[in-house]
Amino acid sequence: MLLYNSPDSGNCYKVRLLLAHLGIDYETQDLDVVDRSDRREKIGNLNPALRVPTIVLDDGRALGESDAILFYFAEGTEYLPVDRYERAQVLQWMFFEQYQHEPNIAVVRFWTHWSKDRVSEADIEAKRQAGYDTLDKMEDHLASRQFLVGDRYSIADIALYGYTHVAHEGGFDMSRFPAINAWLERVAAQPGHVTIDA
Amino acid sequence: MLLYNSPDSGNCYKVRLLLAHLGIDYETQDLDVVDRSDRREKIGNLNPALRVPTIVLDDGRALGESDAILFYFAEGTEYLPVDRYERAQVLQWMFFEQYQHEPNIAVVRFWTHWSKDRVSEADIEAKRQAGYDTLDKMEDHLASRQFLVGDRYSIADIALYGYTHVAHEGGFDMSRFPAINAWLERVAAQPGHVTIDA
Repeated sequence: MLLYNSPDSGNCYKVRLLLAHLGIDYETQDLDVVDRSDRREKIGNLNPALRVPTIVLDDGRALGESDAILFYFAEGTEYLPVDRYERAQVLQWMFFEQYQHEPNIAVVRFWTHWSKDRVSEADIEAKRQAGYDTLDKMEDHLASRQFLVGDRYSIADIALYGYTHVAHEGGFDMSRFPAINAWLERVAAQPGHVTIDA
Repeated sequence: MLLYNSPDSGNCYKVRLLLAHLGIDYETQDLDVVDRSDRREKIGNLNPALRVPTIVLDDGRALGESDAILFYFAEGTEYLPVDRYERAQVLQWMFFEQYQHEPNIAVVRFWTHWSKDRVSEADIEAKRQAGYDTLDKMEDHLASRQFLVGDRYSIADIALYGYTHVAHEGGFDMSRFPAINAWLERVAAQPGHVTIDA
Protein backbone atom coordinates (compact mmCIF):
# COMPACT_ATOMS: atom_id res chain seq x y z
CA MET A 1 0.00 0.00 0.00
CA LEU A 2 1.30 3.46 -0.93
CA LEU A 3 0.39 6.75 0.74
CA TYR A 4 1.05 9.95 -1.19
CA ASN A 5 1.98 12.09 1.75
CA SER A 6 3.27 15.35 3.12
CA PRO A 7 5.11 15.20 6.46
CA ASP A 8 3.70 18.56 7.61
CA SER A 9 0.09 18.11 6.47
CA GLY A 10 -2.44 17.48 9.23
CA ASN A 11 -4.67 15.81 6.63
CA CYS A 12 -1.92 13.25 5.91
CA TYR A 13 -1.10 12.86 9.60
CA LYS A 14 -4.70 11.80 10.31
CA VAL A 15 -4.24 8.83 7.99
CA ARG A 16 -0.82 7.93 9.42
CA LEU A 17 -2.28 8.11 12.95
CA LEU A 18 -5.18 5.75 12.22
CA LEU A 19 -2.94 3.30 10.32
CA ALA A 20 -0.57 3.31 13.33
CA HIS A 21 -3.46 2.49 15.67
CA LEU A 22 -4.49 -0.33 13.35
CA GLY A 23 -0.95 -1.66 12.86
CA ILE A 24 -1.24 -1.46 9.07
CA ASP A 25 2.03 -1.21 7.11
CA TYR A 26 2.42 1.03 4.07
CA GLU A 27 4.97 2.94 2.05
CA THR A 28 4.97 6.70 1.59
CA GLN A 29 5.87 9.01 -1.25
CA ASP A 30 6.11 12.64 -0.20
CA LEU A 31 4.73 15.35 -2.49
CA ASP A 32 5.61 19.03 -2.21
CA VAL A 33 2.82 21.17 -0.72
CA VAL A 34 4.23 24.45 -2.09
CA ASP A 35 5.37 23.54 -5.61
CA ARG A 36 2.42 21.47 -6.83
CA SER A 37 3.48 21.37 -10.50
CA ASP A 38 4.00 17.59 -10.46
CA ARG A 39 0.59 16.76 -8.95
CA ARG A 40 -1.11 15.87 -12.24
CA GLU A 41 1.77 13.60 -13.27
CA LYS A 42 2.00 11.90 -9.87
CA ILE A 43 -1.64 11.48 -8.78
CA GLY A 44 -3.73 12.77 -11.70
CA ASN A 45 -5.10 9.30 -12.39
CA LEU A 46 -5.69 8.55 -8.72
CA ASN A 47 -7.49 11.55 -7.22
CA PRO A 48 -9.28 14.25 -9.24
CA ALA A 49 -8.73 16.76 -6.41
CA LEU A 50 -4.92 16.32 -6.79
CA ARG A 51 -4.58 16.57 -2.99
CA VAL A 52 -2.64 14.61 -0.42
CA PRO A 53 -3.32 12.28 1.22
CA THR A 54 -4.09 9.95 -1.65
CA ILE A 55 -3.74 6.25 -0.90
CA VAL A 56 -3.25 3.35 -3.30
CA LEU A 57 -4.52 0.07 -1.86
CA ASP A 58 -2.74 -3.24 -2.40
CA ASP A 59 -5.06 -4.06 -5.31
CA GLY A 60 -4.18 -0.77 -7.06
CA ARG A 61 -7.43 1.04 -6.32
CA ALA A 62 -7.01 4.60 -5.04
CA LEU A 63 -8.80 6.78 -2.51
CA GLY A 64 -8.55 10.51 -1.83
CA GLU A 65 -9.86 12.91 0.84
CA SER A 66 -8.41 12.34 4.29
CA ASP A 67 -11.71 11.76 6.05
CA ALA A 68 -12.99 9.31 3.41
CA ILE A 69 -9.74 7.36 3.84
CA LEU A 70 -10.24 7.35 7.64
CA PHE A 71 -13.79 6.02 7.20
CA TYR A 72 -12.60 3.28 4.84
CA PHE A 73 -10.00 1.91 7.24
CA ALA A 74 -12.09 2.43 10.40
CA GLU A 75 -15.13 0.45 9.23
CA GLY A 76 -15.40 -2.70 11.30
CA THR A 77 -12.89 -1.48 13.92
CA GLU A 78 -13.25 0.17 17.32
CA TYR A 79 -12.49 3.54 15.72
CA LEU A 80 -15.93 3.86 14.06
CA PRO A 81 -19.16 3.35 16.05
CA VAL A 82 -21.51 0.61 14.90
CA ASP A 83 -24.60 2.62 15.83
CA ARG A 84 -26.03 4.30 12.74
CA TYR A 85 -26.74 7.63 14.45
CA GLU A 86 -23.30 7.78 16.06
CA ARG A 87 -21.70 6.97 12.70
CA ALA A 88 -23.58 9.92 11.19
CA GLN A 89 -22.39 12.11 14.08
CA VAL A 90 -18.81 11.07 13.30
CA LEU A 91 -19.39 12.21 9.71
CA GLN A 92 -21.02 15.43 10.94
CA TRP A 93 -17.80 16.31 12.79
CA MET A 94 -15.63 15.30 9.84
CA PHE A 95 -17.62 17.53 7.45
CA PHE A 96 -17.44 20.32 10.05
CA GLU A 97 -13.67 19.79 10.02
CA GLN A 98 -13.28 20.04 6.26
CA TYR A 99 -15.70 22.98 5.89
CA GLN A 100 -14.99 25.20 8.91
CA HIS A 101 -11.82 23.99 10.61
CA GLU A 102 -9.27 23.04 7.95
CA PRO A 103 -10.01 26.03 5.63
CA ASN A 104 -9.32 28.41 8.51
CA ILE A 105 -6.97 26.83 11.04
CA ALA A 106 -4.87 24.77 8.63
CA VAL A 107 -4.78 27.52 6.01
CA VAL A 108 -3.58 30.15 8.52
CA ARG A 109 -0.84 27.74 9.64
CA PHE A 110 0.14 27.13 6.01
CA TRP A 111 0.14 30.84 5.14
CA THR A 112 2.18 31.90 8.16
CA HIS A 113 4.74 29.08 7.72
CA TRP A 114 5.06 28.50 4.01
CA SER A 115 3.67 31.43 2.05
CA LYS A 116 3.59 34.48 4.29
CA ASP A 117 4.83 36.94 1.68
CA ARG A 118 1.93 36.32 -0.68
CA VAL A 119 -0.95 36.81 1.76
CA SER A 120 -2.21 40.05 3.31
CA GLU A 121 -2.42 40.51 7.08
CA ALA A 122 -6.14 41.27 6.63
CA ASP A 123 -6.73 37.89 4.97
CA ILE A 124 -4.78 36.13 7.72
CA GLU A 125 -6.73 37.96 10.41
CA ALA A 126 -10.11 37.14 8.84
CA LYS A 127 -9.26 33.44 8.73
CA ARG A 128 -7.84 33.57 12.26
CA GLN A 129 -11.13 34.98 13.55
CA ALA A 130 -13.09 32.26 11.72
CA GLY A 131 -10.66 29.74 13.21
CA TYR A 132 -11.29 31.03 16.73
CA ASP A 133 -15.03 30.75 16.09
CA THR A 134 -14.52 27.11 15.12
CA LEU A 135 -12.39 26.43 18.20
CA ASP A 136 -15.09 28.06 20.39
CA LYS A 137 -17.59 25.53 19.01
CA MET A 138 -15.26 22.62 19.77
CA GLU A 139 -14.62 24.02 23.26
CA ASP A 140 -18.36 24.24 23.99
CA HIS A 141 -18.91 20.67 22.82
CA LEU A 142 -15.92 19.19 24.67
CA ALA A 143 -16.66 21.05 27.93
CA SER A 144 -19.02 18.22 28.94
CA ARG A 145 -17.51 15.31 27.00
CA GLN A 146 -14.42 13.13 26.89
CA PHE A 147 -14.49 12.66 23.13
CA LEU A 148 -16.46 14.16 20.24
CA VAL A 149 -18.94 11.31 19.67
CA GLY A 150 -20.40 8.71 21.99
CA ASP A 151 -17.73 9.39 24.63
CA ARG A 152 -15.39 7.01 22.87
CA TYR A 153 -12.26 7.78 20.84
CA SER A 154 -13.13 7.58 17.14
CA ILE A 155 -12.03 8.86 13.74
CA ALA A 156 -13.98 12.03 14.54
CA ASP A 157 -11.33 12.77 17.17
CA ILE A 158 -8.52 11.81 14.80
CA ALA A 159 -9.97 14.10 12.10
CA LEU A 160 -10.18 17.11 14.44
CA TYR A 161 -6.89 16.36 16.22
CA GLY A 162 -4.95 16.63 12.94
CA TYR A 163 -4.92 20.42 12.76
CA THR A 164 -6.10 21.36 16.26
CA HIS A 165 -2.94 20.06 17.92
CA VAL A 166 -0.77 22.25 15.66
CA ALA A 167 -3.07 25.31 15.68
CA HIS A 168 -0.54 27.21 17.82
CA GLU A 169 1.84 27.04 14.83
CA GLY A 170 -0.65 29.32 13.05
CA GLY A 171 -0.58 31.80 15.93
CA PHE A 172 -3.73 30.60 17.70
CA ASP A 173 -3.62 31.23 21.45
CA MET A 174 -4.67 27.81 22.71
CA SER A 175 -4.58 28.82 26.37
CA ARG A 176 -8.14 30.05 25.79
CA PHE A 177 -9.42 26.48 25.34
CA PRO A 178 -9.04 24.32 28.48
CA ALA A 179 -11.53 21.65 27.35
CA ILE A 180 -9.78 21.32 23.99
CA ASN A 181 -6.40 21.04 25.72
CA ALA A 182 -7.66 18.26 28.01
CA TRP A 183 -9.08 16.46 24.97
CA LEU A 184 -5.77 16.83 23.09
CA GLU A 185 -4.07 15.09 26.02
CA ARG A 186 -6.65 12.29 26.01
CA VAL A 187 -6.12 11.74 22.29
CA ALA A 188 -2.33 11.69 22.67
CA ALA A 189 -2.67 9.09 25.45
CA GLN A 190 -4.47 6.56 23.23
CA PRO A 191 -2.68 3.22 22.70
CA GLY A 192 -0.64 3.26 19.51
CA HIS A 193 -0.56 7.07 19.24
CA VAL A 194 2.17 8.50 17.01
CA THR A 195 3.17 12.15 16.67
CA ILE A 196 3.04 14.15 13.44
CA ASP A 197 6.83 14.00 13.13
CA ALA A 198 7.13 10.31 13.98
CA MET B 1 -39.33 14.81 11.96
CA LEU B 2 -38.35 18.47 11.52
CA LEU B 3 -35.94 19.89 8.93
CA TYR B 4 -34.49 23.34 9.59
CA ASN B 5 -34.36 24.47 6.01
CA SER B 6 -33.75 27.19 3.48
CA PRO B 7 -35.71 26.97 0.22
CA ASP B 8 -32.82 28.33 -1.87
CA SER B 9 -29.96 26.37 -0.25
CA GLY B 10 -28.55 23.54 -2.33
CA ASN B 11 -27.37 21.92 0.90
CA CYS B 12 -30.97 21.76 2.16
CA TYR B 13 -32.26 20.67 -1.25
CA LYS B 14 -29.97 17.62 -1.17
CA VAL B 15 -31.75 16.40 1.97
CA ARG B 16 -35.23 17.15 0.56
CA LEU B 17 -34.31 15.27 -2.63
CA LEU B 18 -33.17 12.12 -0.83
CA LEU B 19 -36.17 12.15 1.53
CA ALA B 20 -38.45 12.46 -1.54
CA HIS B 21 -36.78 9.41 -3.13
CA LEU B 22 -37.25 7.51 0.11
CA GLY B 23 -40.86 8.66 0.63
CA ILE B 24 -40.10 9.94 4.13
CA ASP B 25 -42.42 12.62 5.52
CA TYR B 26 -41.18 15.58 7.56
CA GLU B 27 -41.98 19.12 8.51
CA THR B 28 -39.84 22.12 7.66
CA GLN B 29 -38.97 25.34 9.42
CA ASP B 30 -37.25 27.87 7.19
CA LEU B 31 -34.34 29.90 8.56
CA ASP B 32 -33.06 33.10 6.95
CA VAL B 33 -29.72 32.65 5.13
CA VAL B 34 -28.89 36.38 5.13
CA ASP B 35 -29.97 37.52 8.61
CA ARG B 36 -28.57 34.74 10.78
CA SER B 37 -29.10 36.50 14.12
CA ASP B 38 -31.64 33.91 15.31
CA ARG B 39 -29.47 30.88 14.57
CA ARG B 40 -28.21 30.36 18.12
CA GLU B 41 -31.72 30.61 19.54
CA LYS B 42 -33.24 28.30 16.92
CA ILE B 43 -30.60 25.59 16.45
CA GLY B 44 -27.84 26.38 18.95
CA ASN B 45 -28.57 23.23 20.93
CA LEU B 46 -28.92 21.07 17.82
CA ASN B 47 -25.92 21.82 15.59
CA PRO B 48 -22.72 23.54 16.76
CA ALA B 49 -22.07 24.79 13.21
CA LEU B 50 -25.40 26.72 13.29
CA ARG B 51 -25.96 25.81 9.64
CA VAL B 52 -28.93 24.53 7.69
CA PRO B 53 -29.85 21.83 7.01
CA THR B 54 -30.21 20.61 10.57
CA ILE B 55 -32.65 17.77 11.10
CA VAL B 56 -34.40 16.66 14.27
CA LEU B 57 -35.34 12.98 14.17
CA ASP B 58 -38.61 11.65 15.59
CA ASP B 59 -36.86 10.75 18.85
CA GLY B 60 -35.55 14.30 19.28
CA ARG B 61 -31.93 13.60 18.33
CA ALA B 62 -30.43 16.08 15.87
CA LEU B 63 -28.00 15.89 12.97
CA GLY B 64 -26.20 18.60 11.03
CA GLU B 65 -24.08 18.78 7.86
CA SER B 66 -25.98 17.99 4.68
CA ASP B 67 -23.77 15.12 3.58
CA ALA B 68 -23.80 13.45 7.02
CA ILE B 69 -27.61 13.64 6.93
CA LEU B 70 -27.62 12.06 3.46
CA PHE B 71 -25.40 9.23 4.70
CA TYR B 72 -27.64 8.61 7.70
CA PHE B 73 -30.80 8.21 5.65
CA ALA B 74 -29.14 6.37 2.74
CA GLU B 75 -27.62 3.56 4.84
CA GLY B 76 -29.38 0.32 3.99
CA THR B 77 -31.04 1.76 0.88
CA GLU B 78 -30.19 1.64 -2.83
CA TYR B 79 -28.75 5.16 -2.57
CA LEU B 80 -25.57 4.05 -0.75
CA PRO B 81 -23.42 1.19 -2.10
CA VAL B 82 -22.89 -1.80 0.18
CA ASP B 83 -19.34 -2.33 -1.04
CA ARG B 84 -16.89 -0.80 1.44
CA TYR B 85 -14.62 0.73 -1.22
CA GLU B 86 -17.54 2.21 -3.16
CA ARG B 87 -18.96 3.64 0.07
CA ALA B 88 -15.59 5.34 0.69
CA GLN B 89 -15.67 6.68 -2.87
CA VAL B 90 -19.09 8.17 -2.17
CA LEU B 91 -17.60 9.91 0.85
CA GLN B 92 -14.59 11.04 -1.23
CA TRP B 93 -16.94 12.86 -3.62
CA MET B 94 -18.98 14.32 -0.74
CA PHE B 95 -15.84 15.70 0.96
CA PHE B 96 -14.72 17.03 -2.45
CA GLU B 97 -18.11 18.73 -2.65
CA GLN B 98 -17.89 20.42 0.74
CA TYR B 99 -14.22 21.42 0.35
CA GLN B 100 -13.88 22.48 -3.31
CA HIS B 101 -17.35 22.75 -4.83
CA GLU B 102 -19.68 24.36 -2.31
CA PRO B 103 -17.16 27.01 -1.07
CA ASN B 104 -16.70 28.22 -4.64
CA ILE B 105 -19.79 27.47 -6.73
CA ALA B 106 -22.42 27.90 -4.00
CA VAL B 107 -20.68 30.91 -2.51
CA VAL B 108 -20.46 32.73 -5.88
CA ARG B 109 -24.18 32.04 -6.40
CA PHE B 110 -24.93 33.37 -2.92
CA TRP B 111 -22.78 36.47 -3.36
CA THR B 112 -24.20 37.38 -6.77
CA HIS B 113 -27.84 36.82 -5.68
CA TRP B 114 -28.01 37.83 -2.06
CA SER B 115 -25.02 39.94 -1.06
CA LYS B 116 -23.50 41.46 -4.22
CA ASP B 117 -22.86 44.90 -2.74
CA ARG B 118 -20.58 43.62 0.00
CA VAL B 119 -18.19 41.54 -2.13
CA SER B 120 -15.51 42.76 -4.53
CA GLU B 121 -15.49 41.71 -8.18
CA ALA B 122 -11.96 40.36 -7.64
CA ASP B 123 -13.17 38.04 -4.86
CA ILE B 124 -16.05 36.84 -7.03
CA GLU B 125 -13.72 36.24 -9.97
CA ALA B 126 -11.22 34.27 -7.85
CA LYS B 127 -13.98 31.98 -6.57
CA ARG B 128 -15.46 31.66 -10.05
CA GLN B 129 -12.10 30.45 -11.41
CA ALA B 130 -11.81 27.93 -8.56
CA GLY B 131 -15.38 26.87 -9.35
CA TYR B 132 -14.51 26.29 -13.01
CA ASP B 133 -11.53 24.21 -11.93
CA THR B 134 -13.87 22.07 -9.81
CA LEU B 135 -16.34 21.69 -12.68
CA ASP B 136 -13.45 20.68 -14.99
CA LYS B 137 -12.65 17.84 -12.58
CA MET B 138 -16.27 16.68 -12.54
CA GLU B 139 -16.40 16.90 -16.36
CA ASP B 140 -13.27 14.72 -16.70
CA HIS B 141 -14.69 12.13 -14.33
CA LEU B 142 -18.17 12.03 -15.88
CA ALA B 143 -16.89 11.92 -19.48
CA SER B 144 -16.62 8.13 -19.21
CA ARG B 145 -19.28 7.43 -16.57
CA GLN B 146 -23.04 7.53 -16.06
CA PHE B 147 -22.84 8.41 -12.37
CA LEU B 148 -20.06 9.45 -9.97
CA VAL B 149 -19.54 6.10 -8.19
CA GLY B 150 -20.05 2.52 -9.35
CA ASP B 151 -22.14 3.63 -12.32
CA ARG B 152 -25.21 3.73 -10.12
CA TYR B 153 -27.14 6.75 -8.82
CA SER B 154 -26.15 7.39 -5.20
CA ILE B 155 -25.96 10.11 -2.57
CA ALA B 156 -22.66 11.16 -4.19
CA ASP B 157 -24.73 12.30 -7.18
CA ILE B 158 -27.31 13.95 -4.94
CA ALA B 159 -24.54 15.80 -3.05
CA LEU B 160 -22.95 17.17 -6.24
CA TYR B 161 -26.26 17.82 -8.00
CA GLY B 162 -27.36 20.22 -5.24
CA TYR B 163 -25.27 23.18 -6.36
CA THR B 164 -24.13 22.04 -9.83
CA HIS B 165 -27.63 22.24 -11.27
CA VAL B 166 -27.95 25.89 -10.16
CA ALA B 167 -24.35 26.91 -10.97
CA HIS B 168 -25.62 29.02 -13.91
CA GLU B 169 -27.34 31.24 -11.30
CA GLY B 170 -23.82 32.19 -10.15
CA GLY B 171 -22.80 33.11 -13.69
CA PHE B 172 -21.07 29.84 -14.58
CA ASP B 173 -21.22 29.11 -18.32
CA MET B 174 -22.39 25.50 -18.20
CA SER B 175 -22.30 25.07 -21.99
CA ARG B 176 -18.61 24.21 -21.48
CA PHE B 177 -19.51 20.96 -19.70
CA PRO B 178 -21.38 18.47 -21.93
CA ALA B 179 -20.71 15.45 -19.70
CA ILE B 180 -21.96 17.31 -16.63
CA ASN B 181 -25.09 18.39 -18.51
CA ALA B 182 -25.85 14.81 -19.60
CA TRP B 183 -25.37 13.69 -15.97
CA LEU B 184 -27.67 16.47 -14.69
CA GLU B 185 -30.36 15.10 -17.03
CA ARG B 186 -29.81 11.54 -15.80
CA VAL B 187 -30.14 12.68 -12.17
CA ALA B 188 -33.33 14.63 -12.92
CA ALA B 189 -34.80 11.53 -14.61
CA GLN B 190 -34.49 9.36 -11.48
CA PRO B 191 -37.76 8.01 -10.03
CA GLY B 192 -39.09 10.29 -7.30
CA HIS B 193 -36.99 13.29 -8.34
CA VAL B 194 -38.19 16.66 -7.05
CA THR B 195 -36.94 20.10 -8.08
CA ILE B 196 -35.35 22.64 -5.73
CA ASP B 197 -38.54 24.76 -5.80
CA ALA B 198 -40.94 21.83 -5.36
